[in-house]
Amino acid sequence: MQRIAMLGSGFIGRFYADSLQGQRSRDKIVSIYSRREESAKKFAEDYQVDHWTTDMETSIAHPDVTVVCISLPNNLHEAAVNLCCKHKKAVICTKPLGRNAEEAKRMLEAVEKAGIFHGYLEDLVYTPKFLKALQSVKSGALGRILWAKSRETHPGPHSEWFWDKEQAGGGCILDLGCHCVEIARSFIGKDIKPVEVMCWADTQVKPIDAEDHAIGLVKYENGAIGQFEVSWTFRGGLDLRDEVMGSEGTIWLNSFLRTGFDMFTTGKGAEYVAEKAESNTGWLFPVGDELNELGYNHMFADMFRAMEEGREPAESFYDGYVVNAVLDAAYRSAASKQWEPVKLDVWRGQEGVEKMRPQTDYNEQYYLIKEETTHYGAKKLILKDKKTGQIVEQTI
Amino acid sequence: MQRIAMLGSGFIGRFYADSLQGQRSRDKIVSIYSRREESAKKFAEDYQVDHWTTDMETSIAHPDVTVVCISLPNNLHEAAVNLCCKHKKAVICTKPLGRNAEEAKRMLEAVEKAGIFHGYLEDLVYTPKFLKALQSVKSGALGRILWAKSRETHPGPHSEWFWDKEQAGGGCILDLGCHCVEIARSFIGKDIKPVEVMCWADTQVKPIDAEDHAIGLVKYENGAIGQFEVSWTFRGGLDLRDEVMGSEGTIWLNSFLRTGFDMFTTGKGAEYVAEKAESNTGWLFPVGDELNELGYNHMFADMFRAMEEGREPAESFYDGYVVNAVLDAAYRSAASKQWEPVKLDVWRGQEGVEKMRPQTDYNEQYYLIKEETTHYGAKKLILKDKKTGQIVEQTI
Amino acid sequence: MQRIAMLGSGFIGRFYADSLQGQRSRDKIVSIYSRREESAKKFAEDYQVDHWTTDMETSIAHPDVTVVCISLPNNLHEAAVNLCCKHKKAVICTKPLGRNAEEAKRMLEAVEKAGIFHGYLEDLVYTPKFLKALQSVKSGALGRILWAKSRETHPGPHSEWFWDKEQAGGGCILDLGCHCVEIARSFIGKDIKPVEVMCWADTQVKPIDAEDHAIGLVKYENGAIGQFEVSWTFRGGLDLRDEVMGSEGTIWLNSFLRTGFDMFTTGKGAEYVAEKAESNTGWLFPVGDELNELGYNHMFADMFRAMEEGREPAESFYDGYVVNAVLDAAYRSAASKQWEPVKLDVWRGQEGVEKMRPQTDYNEQYYLIKEETTHYGAKKLILKDKKTGQIVEQTI
Amino acid sequence: MQRIAMLGSGFIGRFYADSLQGQRSRDKIVSIYSRREESAKKFAEDYQVDHWTTDMETSIAHPDVTVVCISLPNNLHEAAVNLCCKHKKAVICTKPLGRNAEEAKRMLEAVEKAGIFHGYLEDLVYTPKFLKALQSVKSGALGRILWAKSRETHPGPHSEWFWDKEQAGGGCILDLGCHCVEIARSFIGKDIKPVEVMCWADTQVKPIDAEDHAIGLVKYENGAIGQFEVSWTFRGGLDLRDEVMGSEGTIWLNSFLRTGFDMFTTGKGAEYVAEKAESNTGWLFPVGDELNELGYNHMFADMFRAMEEGREPAESFYDGYVVNAVLDAAYRSAASKQWEPVKLDVWRGQEGVEKMRPQTDYNEQYYLIKEETTHYGAKKLILKDKKTGQIVEQTI
Repeated sequence: MQRIAMLGSGFIGRFYADSLQGQRSRDKIVSIYSRREESAKKFAEDYQVDHWTTDMETSIAHPDVTVVCISLPNNLHEAAVNLCCKHKKAVICTKPLGRNAEEAKRMLEAVEKAGIFHGYLEDLVYTPKFLKALQSVKSGALGRILWAKSRETHPGPHSEWFWDKEQAGGGCILDLGCHCVEIARSFIGKDIKPVEVMCWADTQVKPIDAEDHAIGLVKYENGAIGQFEVSWTFRGGLDLRDEVMGSEGTIWLNSFLRTGFDMFTTGKGAEYVAEKAESNTGWLFPVGDELNELGYNHMFADMFRAMEEGREPAESFYDGYVVNAVLDAAYRSAASKQWEPVKLDVWRGQEGVEKMRPQTDYNEQYYLIKEETTHYGAKKLILKDKKTGQIVEQTI
Repeated sequence: MQRIAMLGSGFIGRFYADSLQGQRSRDKIVSIYSRREESAKKFAEDYQVDHWTTDMETSIAHPDVTVVCISLPNNLHEAAVNLCCKHKKAVICTKPLGRNAEEAKRMLEAVEKAGIFHGYLEDLVYTPKFLKALQSVKSGALGRILWAKSRETHPGPHSEWFWDKEQAGGGCILDLGCHCVEIARSFIGKDIKPVEVMCWADTQVKPIDAEDHAIGLVKYENGAIGQFEVSWTFRGGLDLRDEVMGSEGTIWLNSFLRTGFDMFTTGKGAEYVAEKAESNTGWLFPVGDELNELGYNHMFADMFRAMEEGREPAESFYDGYVVNAVLDAAYRSAASKQWEPVKLDVWRGQEGVEKMRPQTDYNEQYYLIKEETTHYGAKKLILKDKKTGQIVEQTI
Repeated sequence: MQRIAMLGSGFIGRFYADSLQGQRSRDKIVSIYSRREESAKKFAEDYQVDHWTTDMETSIAHPDVTVVCISLPNNLHEAAVNLCCKHKKAVICTKPLGRNAEEAKRMLEAVEKAGIFHGYLEDLVYTPKFLKALQSVKSGALGRILWAKSRETHPGPHSEWFWDKEQAGGGCILDLGCHCVEIARSFIGKDIKPVEVMCWADTQVKPIDAEDHAIGLVKYENGAIGQFEVSWTFRGGLDLRDEVMGSEGTIWLNSFLRTGFDMFTTGKGAEYVAEKAESNTGWLFPVGDELNELGYNHMFADMFRAMEEGREPAESFYDGYVVNAVLDAAYRSAASKQWEPVKLDVWRGQEGVEKMRPQTDYNEQYYLIKEETTHYGAKKLILKDKKTGQIVEQTI
Repeated sequence: MQRIAMLGSGFIGRFYADSLQGQRSRDKIVSIYSRREESAKKFAEDYQVDHWTTDMETSIAHPDVTVVCISLPNNLHEAAVNLCCKHKKAVICTKPLGRNAEEAKRMLEAVEKAGIFHGYLEDLVYTPKFLKALQSVKSGALGRILWAKSRETHPGPHSEWFWDKEQAGGGCILDLGCHCVEIARSFIGKDIKPVEVMCWADTQVKPIDAEDHAIGLVKYENGAIGQFEVSWTFRGGLDLRDEVMGSEGTIWLNSFLRTGFDMFTTGKGAEYVAEKAESNTGWLFPVGDELNELGYNHMFADMFRAMEEGREPAESFYDGYVVNAVLDAAYRSAASKQWEPVKLDVWRGQEGVEKMRPQTDYNEQYYLIKEETTHYGAKKLILKDKKTGQIVEQTI
């Protein structure tokens, strides 16, 4: 059983609390910190939390607390982490870890120096679909991974601090891209180094300083490509999709807008407000159980089991740092209009991995380009002569 | 915290155990009974259960046990229930409750007489999708419910006892129809009386005595229609779909074969065995988290919270009895080739509900049949004269 | 090249005309008959038709006309057919052929006696999806066909005569069921006799005399089951889906509401009116090319090629008659609440087909019930002893 | 009626012929040219073509011919076009127009100088889904178009010349990217100038010189972004999807692998070979009518109607040239790793279009960032102060 200090009582803190104390959970939030007294009290009441405070350190230092959960705006993560280090409390932190790699690196070094447990709350690599997909990828069902794309777009975040570049550290790249980068990285292999990034970003719709739409490519040392598509300008709800291409297979995941739940309502029946939907009449696509579909349940289970078993969780501050480093390169690329190198002072994966080689031997003379069944049912081979480079067809 | 005696170590017992002890659950299986010593031991080992036995009563009577979970073939439910009554242990029983309504009624009367907690483990009315859909239906988003269909078909069950009519009590109607009937009944309203059933059943493919394919219609007192489509001969995996039509809306649920997870594999990458799939190459449609998608997690949470709060769970032995009574009528109808009445000695819902009336007033003279936008953008009304019955068009 | 007399200038006549004169067609409508002069003129103008009239016989007898296309309300089909017989003009007639089998039989006998070409315009067995699916079924890809369901539901027809039982001859069973019956019959085999029908029908929503919702089962001589689900009370658009189960495979067709075209609009951009959709904001599901998706193009191509090649089209008045006979049985069953025999005075398919036999030999001692891969990867057989009937499991 | 000389008897020539002479078409292929006599004869026989030849000029110059259809490898387009100019024959040419913009420009200048009709056979902007989607976009249903992506990936082409860089002029960028660029350009507006391109390309799987996988971004003068995703390494069939994001809406088109036709077959029923599918057992996703779904029917109808009406077709050599210019920039960018300008010597659209401005006025003091319904049903505004830039929340 874990006893949690929750820092932050906003949208994400409440989502986390619903998961942490949901169903038959043995874990319990024992202290809630919020900047506003009213919010702290309300949260304490809603979630039956014994202790509430507007002083962050009091919450962290509370003797009942075994683990601190940071659900604060991005600019407050580092201070909270440092207090956890001071009080030697295990810490789990929402995404993104830092506003940039420098911040993230300082947090990583702090928790490692303090010797405390640290987990990075990247929920989207814990969704049930993702976990099963990753298992298939790791078992080789897709062959070599060539490309992994993750897309997260919606009509914009719900709290004002997201829209303020100073507090948030950036726009949709930082807010949503952190998910996408870690999803693609996981499929490609977390021990494969991301080497450079190309990114387009613009402010197309919203009257803000930060970007509200961006697309990026992340090149890995083995030649695989990660892709992110992020936006705060998408109309129609929350679009959350991943695609993976391997030399032997394909995976398509749709985690929100098309999950096998279709509903039409004229709206005459009754007032119905669908969560996160942009309308409440016509065709709607609800998600059965958001907490589970978004990975919260499996994420906290891994975090707390890892603590109890004395092992690292699947996502630690180190992963948060790598993600920040990739996103930093994305921002530099959006500005320079060139591929920008990923700067990783700390790298714990493989070094010097060779680029995947495409050649497929058919026999001594030929490489195999393609095997095909023609219109007329015959089998045809397209081959390339190893010496001359000539391409020929053979019907067999 | 609940301490469970699990009766039965087969496929369904293991599924239940995965849910009961999954993630951060506070509950624990403390005793396992199996008819075969080898199975009991293996289960105890796999799930870290302290006590195992081949004597059912020993398990039920075990002093640590607070609730008994029956995961046995259908013909053994009643004996197990009676032992729970004898030892005054709370009992939750897998579906269907009885092999027929007579058996189910005896079980219902026994637990009520003994005054023990009783829950009916109809998982498919606890799936996240179903729960959210039901909430929409209850809020009125679909208007009056006209028709609710549930379909469960797959290539046939995994254990030999299902195929033996004596042990199972029937074929796919009993095995799968019990789910479908309760799903439709829940959408239509559990207090609305099912009055008669029309059913076709046949043994089209399998060399067995029981039916392997059936379709049934269940008429409710208010004129709504429930429909079940069940089969052990379906090819392509597990097809689990519900459809609801209301006067103001529609719901379509797909709980298995199309849930937003598509995967293609040539099979060259690696050996990959997909659960319940009929092939392991080509396009596959895995489900992210079966335990959650099939409703086990939400079902046990409701059961145990109900026990702890001293209330009835959403599904009790009474519901299991009603379902058995509907299925009995289905079997009679398949034989008589007529609509057969549902015989309900025990009925606790509404009595004498009137049939829904279709009339929609337009004004003093007319009923409104339809409002339409034509090819040319004009608005057209189709009306029926209240007195003459004549049908006219008006363009407005 | 064919020169067509179009009888009827309403919704379906216009749809037909769009197809007949669409794209690069060599065919041409040369005469239009409508009961109302205004409509005839408007149609002639819209489709560049040289001759218009309010006298049906004038149109049919027009010397330029090579084929007559009947697009009239159901109660006017027979008179039009008889005039075609009188003037020895080839005739193609919209669905359903008659208001009942008696009418249909008279029309069949009339055209055969007159020796004229006759085609039954059942477009939904000419949709591109259906045609390809049928080809797969005929090639054996699904094994023996066990069950074929067709569903057509929408919020009700657009013209007033459909709602009037005298003119239409019935409600949604006749209007929509005629499609569904012929679809299922085609998959099961048009030479297999439909023997009896069970049907539920009710008037649940609309203030009309005819049924607005019905479900029926059609039993074929070989034991296969056809199913129709029809309604004028469905909310959400036009739901057009077929499902086929065979001993070796499955086919699912969705011809309208989910065809790979998803659109969301806030409605702020512009006024947009989607055809047949129930709303013009939110998520909409347009169909790319209705004429093609609904089978009109392939239907007329088959009709006219058949005329030119001197062969029968895929759908003749004989098929229309069989469909009417099945629907008559459905109406009788809805009234009698029993399975009702299909009365077929004229039957040109196979006679005395045996019911499919389910037994599958495994070896001399056993039938094979199922082959299964277990949780632990082992292969398991479920077998039935041919003599004792005992069911056993064998792991191999 | 058009009388066509078909140049080329390969895969694409046959597809074209099936469309040109399909259904009730009034048009006819009157001459076939192929480099190999055997192929010319076979084609003439299969499509009832009166004249065949292995001399290209003979075919073009044939007196019966009213229009020449070029279905040859990319490196032979220019020579064929020049012969059409010489003989003043209308010409329609398969995609891409040239191997690069220089070639395309010469062809454009040649046909304009000769004053002959010229059409660019970009079928994918003529698919029924695309046409209806474009109509919605043009009517404003999506507001301002922000981003349009087109994806075409499959396991590689069927003829050997595609794989040879000299004949093809490039790899999958040229082969598939030409479709994607024109699709995105059409949604964004064909009069909006494409200004620069960023592209990643690699040879990840195939033993060839050209790229087998590429992703590109095309920036338009108004700030909109086009995106293409192309590959010859995709596993699972032909993936053909478009996505459009506008300020007021979204469109998703799936033209091949998910169009409402799902089929499962064990393969035991019969040998079934699915076109372009990668397997013939398991779940398959056929397309009903490829000719129609891929846009051939609507494309040829537009081309020939345009000729007959003396107007330009929707796609002319000018469009082919613009596409080549964009693809040239993509190749330069893949090499330079920077955004590369699109070089358009000939540009006939708008000049100096301003970038879309994101600001949305709420009132005199504020811009509106977002309107939101909160967890608790209240309406919340996120606003930005026009002067201070401060972001605030207001609950209304």
